Amino acid sequence: MIQRSTVEIIAAKRDGQELSTDEIQRVVAGLLSGSVADYQMTALLMAAFFRGMSDAETVALTEAMLRSGKVLDLSSVPGVKVDKHSTGGVGDKVSIALAPLVAACGAPVPMVSGRGLGHTGGTLDKLEAIPGFRTDLSTEDFISVVRDVGTCMIGQTKDVAPADKKIYALRDVTATVECIPLIVASILSKKLAEGIDALVLDVKVGSGAFMKDEARARELATALVRVGQRAGKNVVARLTDMNTPLGVAVGNANETAEALELLHGRGPDDLREITMQLCAEMLVLAKRADDEKSALKSLQNAIDSGAAVAVMEKMIAAQHGDPKVAGNPALLEIAKERIDVTADRAGFVTRADALAIGRAAVAMGAGRARAEDVVDPTVGISVLAKPGDRVERGQPLAALHVRKRDASIEERVKAAYVIEDAAPPARSLFIGRIT
Amino acid sequence: MIQRSTVEIIAAKRDGQELSTDEIQRVVAGLLSGSVADYQMTALLMAAFFRGMSDAETVALTEAMLRSGKVLDLSSVPGVKVDKHSTGGVGDKVSIALAPLVAACGAPVPMVSGRGLGHTGGTLDKLEAIPGFRTDLSTEDFISVVRDVGTCMIGQTKDVAPADKKIYALRDVTATVECIPLIVASILSKKLAEGIDALVLDVKVGSGAFMKDEARARELATALVRVGQRAGKNVVARLTDMNTPLGVAVGNANETAEALELLHGRGPDDLREITMQLCAEMLVLAKRADDEKSALKSLQNAIDSGAAVAVMEKMIAAQHGDPKVAGNPALLEIAKERIDVTADRAGFVTRADALAIGRAAVAMGAGRARAEDVVDPTVGISVLAKPGDRVERGQPLAALHVRKRDASIEERVKAAYVIEDAAPPARSLFIGRIT
Repeated sequence: MIQRSTVEIIAAKRDGQELSTDEIQRVVAGLLSGSVADYQMTALLMAAFFRGMSDAETVALTEAMLRSGKVLDLSSVPGVKVDKHSTGGVGDKVSIALAPLVAACGAPVPMVSGRGLGHTGGTLDKLEAIPGFRTDLSTEDFISVVRDVGTCMIGQTKDVAPADKKIYALRDVTATVECIPLIVASILSKKLAEGIDALVLDVKVGSGAFMKDEARARELATALVRVGQRAGKNVVARLTDMNTPLGVAVGNANETAEALELLHGRGPDDLREITMQLCAEMLVLAKRADDEKSALKSLQNAIDSGAAVAVMEKMIAAQHGDPKVAGNPALLEIAKERIDVTADRAGFVTRADALAIGRAAVAMGAGRARAEDVVDPTVGISVLAKPGDRVERGQPLAALHVRKRDASIEERVKAAYVIEDAAPPARSLFIGRIT
Repeated sequence: MIQRSTVEIIAAKRDGQELSTDEIQRVVAGLLSGSVADYQMTALLMAAFFRGMSDAETVALTEAMLRSGKVLDLSSVPGVKVDKHSTGGVGDKVSIALAPLVAACGAPVPMVSGRGLGHTGGTLDKLEAIPGFRTDLSTEDFISVVRDVGTCMIGQTKDVAPADKKIYALRDVTATVECIPLIVASILSKKLAEGIDALVLDVKVGSGAFMKDEARARELATALVRVGQRAGKNVVARLTDMNTPLGVAVGNANETAEALELLHGRGPDDLREITMQLCAEMLVLAKRADDEKSALKSLQNAIDSGAAVAVMEKMIAAQHGDPKVAGNPALLEIAKERIDVTADRAGFVTRADALAIGRAAVAMGAGRARAEDVVDPTVGISVLAKPGDRVERGQPLAALHVRKRDASIEERVKAAYVIEDAAPPARSLFIGRIT
């Protein structure tokens, strides 16, 4: 059979035909080698936006992007390697406690994370609030820390999935980001490059999430699970609420401190529940527990025994940070000045909008509007009142931890809140589970 | 109102919103200046493929492309300037007789034509079969020949609609050619750059045409007329058959000779009918005739009086060619060797496929597979039998005029013919008219 040319491949996708694995591999390789022009790739991406991609096509794209770069070889680490990926939200510091917890229960967690962009925070920025902590370890050091400590948390090296980086950069400027198979391939290619065997996905739903509505989030979660499984991995997804920030802290140092509190058996309920549920999923996938119940028991033991804190101490030390922080989260520096945003009226909080609060945090300097922006780890917001809470007039809804007062940010945070006479329906933190 | 960014413009088109005239102008200007990347343009073009474009958007694109380059100023030429554009076919040498005929009846015809590509021939290649004839006149010379002779036929200069050239080159490699509003804007931007007041469109339908089926051809013709009129021009379109080559000659020198025969009142019936009909449309649009009947009468007078031949002589002379050719088309050099392709059986010709014959002509060297190929003006095909003709076994169906015999081409031409027992339904040359 004669190979189709690039323009014939674009025409085939445009007309709703399925592309072969070989064709997808040739396009991805050609994009990096220059034989497929950027302007051909973006036309193909837009055609994929309209026509969609089959699971077989999505697997082929995932694997082509994965193989465009370095795939970690974790064969020297015994056991089922498992990771968690969140589609991103506000106050989502789950990874920071989850990795040492799961590792303390015997499952290796090789975690490659990202930085914050827009209203969503990034695990790397939060971890770097720990004095001395480095997220730029070499691949060799990363593997040895995972092997020796059980977990290591670094940033993506430039040789991971370069085709994904290139394609994502093109999607970003051509309105082809919001395409589920392309999102799936992008997420999975990066995660699979970690050399993992199993993956738990936390697909966020709501105002502060990439997916605002449940139907689209469910579609994404289902596609991620299906394609991940077709790519030979054990994959489970949870759909969780992101209309309200997770936990109390939104920022960097304050979020890390809050996550570390979990390792001591403290911290906000919603954050603890999500973290424990996702950890339990990981332990079951990693065959370190038979079911959720026994997984939760192991996790509680790891907290009660101090094993989780011990793993965190070792990980921080191995990543050049101050290990004392693990035992004493209050060592993390938070901006001194505190400004309360108070309730204008008494009633029930019915909304504490994640998107608005996330944007306010960016405006404070806790996040990035542009990729090149520098983050101030000490500033942040404490979300003191959540939907369902009864508040009195003048009671603090949120506290801003700032270096310099800015009334416009206080206004933004206040505007994130709605207070009404009647209590809202109870918040469902867990919206769905896809296996 | 805040201007939308390029990516927001792409997203708007992707989501089916209408773009403003200003937005389309900014995109086209940005493409040329570099502020809009090629890879953004192709994503937008693919979105337009799926979402279509409104007439207002198509007018805006036409005018933005038109104004990206030089627009001829024909104000020094009195009268209503009128041109004809064909969407391209096999054996379509209409322009060569049409321009001097209409000019002889008093309407100036400033004609900018193209070269052949693929199975369709080009007027410039055909004209260049005339010894010495030049199609690369300067703009000033072009205008003065139109003014003095009544018509001039040249190729597109590089400063005409550069945005169209750039966009067409991108469409060609991104499977976004077959998009009616983009086709309309491309055709009209180039034609309007001639500085014309009125335009007759010959939209070909059938195997040898760009539009294979009548519904799509009608859609294109309708859009061309609507958008051309919205752009302030007098526009009429005819839909004509292109399942069978037009006339007898397919090639270059032979096509020019056949067209010149029309000026003497000779030549094949189908070619004469189409040429006269299109000329009549032009004379009515140019207000040189009140209706088709009086237009046809004027045209016949121009033939009978020798006025049309006289215009052609002057035009050829002004374009540095040998003017004797106008009076004696047999002066044009045709390849010496003639090979007949004969009928394998007796019966009625039911098909003489335009696409197959056009491709055979390209293979002989009469056309271009690639833009950089060189055309041999002397070679070609005489299509001797047409659908509806009764033939005997062994009777020539076509004659090949070649420099060197090639059995594979004889096979191709034979394969273009179908002979059956029953006569086919009569051919309808004229399929529709859109005003």
